[in-house]
Amino acid sequence: MKKILIAFFSCSTLIAAAQNKTTEKLVPYVKPIIGTQRMGHVFPGATVPFGMVQLSPETDTPSYELNGHYNPDVYKYCAGYQYDDKTIVGFSHTHFSGTGHSDLGDFLVMPTVGKVMLNPGTADKPGSGYRSAFSHANEVSEANYYKVKLDASGIIAEMTTTTRVGFHQYTFPKSDSAHIVLDLMAGIYNYPDKNVWTYLRMVNDSTVVGYRLTNGWARTRALYFAMTFNKPFIQMGYKNFSKREVYGGFWGKFNHVKNFPEIAARQLKVWFDFKTQENEKIKIKMAISPVSIDGALLNLQTEVPGWDFEKVKNDGQAQWETELHKIVIEGSKDDKENFYTSMYHAMINPTVYMDVDGKYKGLDQNIHQADGFTNYTTFSLWDTHRALHPLFNIIEPKRNADMVQSMLAHFDQSPEHMLPVWSNSANENWCMSGYHSVAVLADAVVKGNTTSFDANKALDAAVTTANHRTYESVGDYIDMGYIPDEKDGNSVSSTLEYAYDDWTIAQMAKKLNRMDVYDTFIKRSQNWKNVFDPQSGFMHPKEADGTWRKTKFDPFTTIGMGFIEGNAWNYTLYVPHDPAGLIKAMGGNKRFVTYIDSLFSYDLPDKYFAETEDITKDGIIGNYVHGNEPSHHDAYLYDWTDKPWKTQDKIRMILKKMYKNTPDGLGGNDDTGQMSAWYIFSSLGFYPVAPGSDQYAIGSPSVYHATINLESGKTFTINVKNQSDKNVYVQKILLNGKPLSGYFLSHADIMNGGELTYVMGSKHK
Amino acid sequence: MKKILIAFFSCSTLIAAAQNKTTEKLVPYVKPIIGTQRMGHVFPGATVPFGMVQLSPETDTPSYELNGHYNPDVYKYCAGYQYDDKTIVGFSHTHFSGTGHSDLGDFLVMPTVGKVMLNPGTADKPGSGYRSAFSHANEVSEANYYKVKLDASGIIAEMTTTTRVGFHQYTFPKSDSAHIVLDLMAGIYNYPDKNVWTYLRMVNDSTVVGYRLTNGWARTRALYFAMTFNKPFIQMGYKNFSKREVYGGFWGKFNHVKNFPEIAARQLKVWFDFKTQENEKIKIKMAISPVSIDGALLNLQTEVPGWDFEKVKNDGQAQWETELHKIVIEGSKDDKENFYTSMYHAMINPTVYMDVDGKYKGLDQNIHQADGFTNYTTFSLWDTHRALHPLFNIIEPKRNADMVQSMLAHFDQSPEHMLPVWSNSANENWCMSGYHSVAVLADAVVKGNTTSFDANKALDAAVTTANHRTYESVGDYIDMGYIPDEKDGNSVSSTLEYAYDDWTIAQMAKKLNRMDVYDTFIKRSQNWKNVFDPQSGFMHPKEADGTWRKTKFDPFTTIGMGFIEGNAWNYTLYVPHDPAGLIKAMGGNKRFVTYIDSLFSYDLPDKYFAETEDITKDGIIGNYVHGNEPSHHDAYLYDWTDKPWKTQDKIRMILKKMYKNTPDGLGGNDDTGQMSAWYIFSSLGFYPVAPGSDQYAIGSPSVYHATINLESGKTFTINVKNQSDKNVYVQKILLNGKPLSGYFLSHADIMNGGELTYVMGSKHK
Repeated sequence: MKKILIAFFSCSTLIAAAQNKTTEKLVPYVKPIIGTQRMGHVFPGATVPFGMVQLSPETDTPSYELNGHYNPDVYKYCAGYQYDDKTIVGFSHTHFSGTGHSDLGDFLVMPTVGKVMLNPGTADKPGSGYRSAFSHANEVSEANYYKVKLDASGIIAEMTTTTRVGFHQYTFPKSDSAHIVLDLMAGIYNYPDKNVWTYLRMVNDSTVVGYRLTNGWARTRALYFAMTFNKPFIQMGYKNFSKREVYGGFWGKFNHVKNFPEIAARQLKVWFDFKTQENEKIKIKMAISPVSIDGALLNLQTEVPGWDFEKVKNDGQAQWETELHKIVIEGSKDDKENFYTSMYHAMINPTVYMDVDGKYKGLDQNIHQADGFTNYTTFSLWDTHRALHPLFNIIEPKRNADMVQSMLAHFDQSPEHMLPVWSNSANENWCMSGYHSVAVLADAVVKGNTTSFDANKALDAAVTTANHRTYESVGDYIDMGYIPDEKDGNSVSSTLEYAYDDWTIAQMAKKLNRMDVYDTFIKRSQNWKNVFDPQSGFMHPKEADGTWRKTKFDPFTTIGMGFIEGNAWNYTLYVPHDPAGLIKAMGGNKRFVTYIDSLFSYDLPDKYFAETEDITKDGIIGNYVHGNEPSHHDAYLYDWTDKPWKTQDKIRMILKKMYKNTPDGLGGNDDTGQMSAWYIFSSLGFYPVAPGSDQYAIGSPSVYHATINLESGKTFTINVKNQSDKNVYVQKILLNGKPLSGYFLSHADIMNGGELTYVMGSKHK
Repeated sequence: MKKILIAFFSCSTLIAAAQNKTTEKLVPYVKPIIGTQRMGHVFPGATVPFGMVQLSPETDTPSYELNGHYNPDVYKYCAGYQYDDKTIVGFSHTHFSGTGHSDLGDFLVMPTVGKVMLNPGTADKPGSGYRSAFSHANEVSEANYYKVKLDASGIIAEMTTTTRVGFHQYTFPKSDSAHIVLDLMAGIYNYPDKNVWTYLRMVNDSTVVGYRLTNGWARTRALYFAMTFNKPFIQMGYKNFSKREVYGGFWGKFNHVKNFPEIAARQLKVWFDFKTQENEKIKIKMAISPVSIDGALLNLQTEVPGWDFEKVKNDGQAQWETELHKIVIEGSKDDKENFYTSMYHAMINPTVYMDVDGKYKGLDQNIHQADGFTNYTTFSLWDTHRALHPLFNIIEPKRNADMVQSMLAHFDQSPEHMLPVWSNSANENWCMSGYHSVAVLADAVVKGNTTSFDANKALDAAVTTANHRTYESVGDYIDMGYIPDEKDGNSVSSTLEYAYDDWTIAQMAKKLNRMDVYDTFIKRSQNWKNVFDPQSGFMHPKEADGTWRKTKFDPFTTIGMGFIEGNAWNYTLYVPHDPAGLIKAMGGNKRFVTYIDSLFSYDLPDKYFAETEDITKDGIIGNYVHGNEPSHHDAYLYDWTDKPWKTQDKIRMILKKMYKNTPDGLGGNDDTGQMSAWYIFSSLGFYPVAPGSDQYAIGSPSVYHATINLESGKTFTINVKNQSDKNVYVQKILLNGKPLSGYFLSHADIMNGGELTYVMGSKHK
């Protein structure tokens, strides 16, 4: 199956290349290292697009607790890697990309020589454990390839992947005491009690299988593995770090402790001993499965039957070429690095979550069979409903439809009978607010992208989710049209988010001619008006008796004002589905323009900065917080006023200020691709302000030329005339040669194929 | 599937009854309460033959630890129930019967009224928890039916089962505050860390599903459940007793804590609230599965689709009638109670270990499909290879062949590539010594009972197991012909056990014409000679240099002498496969007779008694330890001498002394049916001294008449003339009217059907 898939990818790469009239390789522009410094929370390791295995170095795995208290360093290591660190702990097989909360880091592998050490040791004391110093000079980070020299041992570590298999290649010095440590206790979000259970079985002298069950951000998560070496190990050892096990009578029967055929414990580490020649390569294939040991073995045998590291690397990079070629741009090297790294980051999550035979673990803790779709997890929907899924609806429609079907499967299996909020490995995190999966469903339905799922079933699931009265004040919201301040800490932002989500349900219902549903939800979509206070001019917490909150109100603070990850100043603009109504409520065009202007020009006083979650100071422009998502559409709102040119210069400013092709190039968490999707759309010159509509608002393209290679075989070409850093203002827009009236593009305009021409200038119209 | 099975059983009951020329119900003679006092370690609750669910009250579930040390009370509660106790803690769904080590006790249910209490409280303080006082006057214990009045609440608790479903029926008083507590932390072998993980999901207002993963005597065991009530609960509550969970963000999203749709934690208890009318019955069906929640739901729906408690009880009792009618005896009421309770105890273990669709969990932690056989677990083979499996080869040949196939599946899945030693829910305990599963395989092969398995594959598995050099000194045993005393604490008993096991492999090989294997193992079977010291006249520890142990040797002690669960005096007779050779080695007929005599007549001094494991003092006659298995064949060894009449009076003495139809009627652990199988054989007048041969040694029947109804439809009838308590001596034996020459019967003699007539007298021949 996999082989066919690879052949397909390789083939379509060629077709795509022919279509784009470019044979230029785009993988070289992908710099996974971008964003690994500070708060990008991305990782530099190897993965194929949407891979289940994402194999990457950890530079630290700090314990969740420090002296009995929460260790704030944990947050830095959401993706396991921090560019400024001097040591590598090891290489693990699962990572989030760009999240604001952490988990995963499963099955940490580290090659060493000399005395076996089972603890990582500390960064300030090289030699105190299995960790090793490294330097960026000896590091290569590419799409699906990572290489580093481990200074402690001189070992050259290389890794690549397929969807479900991590392939390690370690070039050893000559040693009689070479080891591979498999740390089954290590993990990201490394809570002392995170490991619930660990099991390992030796299949033969070069293969082990097992699983671990963790209670992390995914509350009840099992991950199975099959690990095989290209040569037999001399022996396998283990150490049980558990305080105790219930029944200790397992081992006494056998007169050996090494090479024990089976181990199970709460806390376990194992190692494998080898003798190596100078420059001998020890290769390891580690397959994972959410289903079973058998599943991991099947994934291993199906995806990587042989030992050709270069082939696996090349096949994976060919997959990336295919994906990257979906949008071929012309621009500077810097632009291309920013663009293709954004494309890369946009295609890491969601992640495949099923075995090659279609089996996957469900939210109901049962094993299911995916019929006719690929099952995905890692849905950070509060982030990704905004631009990432709309991007997929253009360049990855089949995959996006599969993602919707995955959400519907989640709904079916969910104990709460709800669509996902944050889907993490067959678990629901409930992270962040709203029920934004409905927007993803609606966007796909409205755009006619329903290949993998039943649109009416999607609408039913959306309605059921939006009517779950006990979920985060939904009952009050339905009854009163807003969430009372006394009832909920996020009363205002949740009211706004529900109102937008409800509007997307209405759009989906209209498309499906379910007018009873439309009527209910279009009415609910106007609930934003219930929390807008015309007197203060802001969205404002309202009490149960219908009066505005009486205590002090501060539009700058994000704490205690009824909002989440945003203050009133930002959230007041959060009516993406009704900018015209918002403008009217806020006093008309002029006052509205001034309001947005002030967002970008009024510098947030320092005292508020510390409160603003998830971003570095670079992630803020004035009081506009690009590092958090609720403002992502703000700069495009000028399109609904008489000053669309203000959208244009703001967008170009944000593109410049917030995205750089350097390790510290991301102004905040990439948020599983949402920040990157914003970049991709905006650099092409348009953006989906309200997913669930078929409309894109025009911004200002930063590319010189772009070709979107659609799955249908059609292409949509973007020509930018007079492009320069100064010519940020759109003078004229031609769609297939005809002037565009207004500053909006429709989804059909793109999907039908054709040509969009921007004529740029240094002065606004 | 189940319905058909039940129909089949009902039908064959009638056929059997017709054949036996008796329509007498035999279930009334089953007294599950026999052996529940003191050390029988059996339980009084409800089960069908070989049921996966064995639903029974716990009178205590003592913690494994008391003040930081091992709590010796744990041993008393191997089956959860002690007759002398005054309170019941609750009713759980899985139990061992008669074991000397404990586990299970899953999913404890207790009905209560009044304030919800989640701890059992203590026996000396009724009202301190959910436990209740009860009295035996208000208790009914039958095959597949248990009833008791709970004094604390006045609730009448009744329970019955199918193979995979426990059916509870609780008759409540009128109450606005009626509860069902589901204690997911309770368990037998109640180690504080035994619960690894627990999960519960509410399917609707009357059904919950879930699982728990335990690290008990089964190291890595998962058991799933589906629990449904006959009326909706008003609400469900839970309490998490875990010290902490890694991520606590799960609940804040919802504005209720009751009726929460999903819970997962290390330590969890839940309860369900009801309002009840006077005498209202709350019924519960609890299905279990070793595979999945879906499996438990399937088991539930397939086996008990309705709510008819009486029907389930009657169907299960009909199954018992069928099983019990396989041997129909005539005798006193006391004899029948002893006999049919023995039959009952012999058919509780091994237990079915698969779902109705044939899926089961394997030793390799994968899910397997049983094709063409029923998969079993709970094999206590050190005990049961002696008489229980031979009994099955007569009355349950199909089932015994399935058990062998289950052992071969175990072998295939075993990380150690070994046949089971003690198979416990897809785990290997390694409890006790030898590799006696080979004797079970050999006995089935030699007796031609290979319907479910490949005999040559069985032989291969036996050879591989017997050649596992790193298992308990097997390597030394193979190399040296005995296990050196310095190397192994059980050097002598293991040498003897391996020698016997090897002989059974040789017999199987001979039957299959695999003469190379025969030659090797018949040679190994003589290794018992290497540990017999002609000078001391005992089996004796031998050192690596070939000399006998130089330190003090005490034939009475069971500690430190190279034996397990037996002393040299007993173990010296443990050459079941070569009594003639043993007699020769021990100095001939006369000295041998004197030796056995002394075993029964020399009272073991008190100081040694405390060392003798697993039995009460009642389990010893002289120095003969009936409560432990290595002596089970001893009394039959006179058949190889000129004094077979001594076998006859010893057997009748043991039958009288060791088995009584009272709660304290068992002299030691029933050992998953081995003690009962000894009783059944011996009361019929013959016994399989060396399973793996087709020979039975004649004893002295205690029945007046017996009919063995064979699966083939044939019958084997046992007539006993001049039977009385005094007429213990066999005067003449006629097989199908012809005098039997000698004191041996062959398996074919029985299986061909026919008639065996004993003529008894008060004086020996």
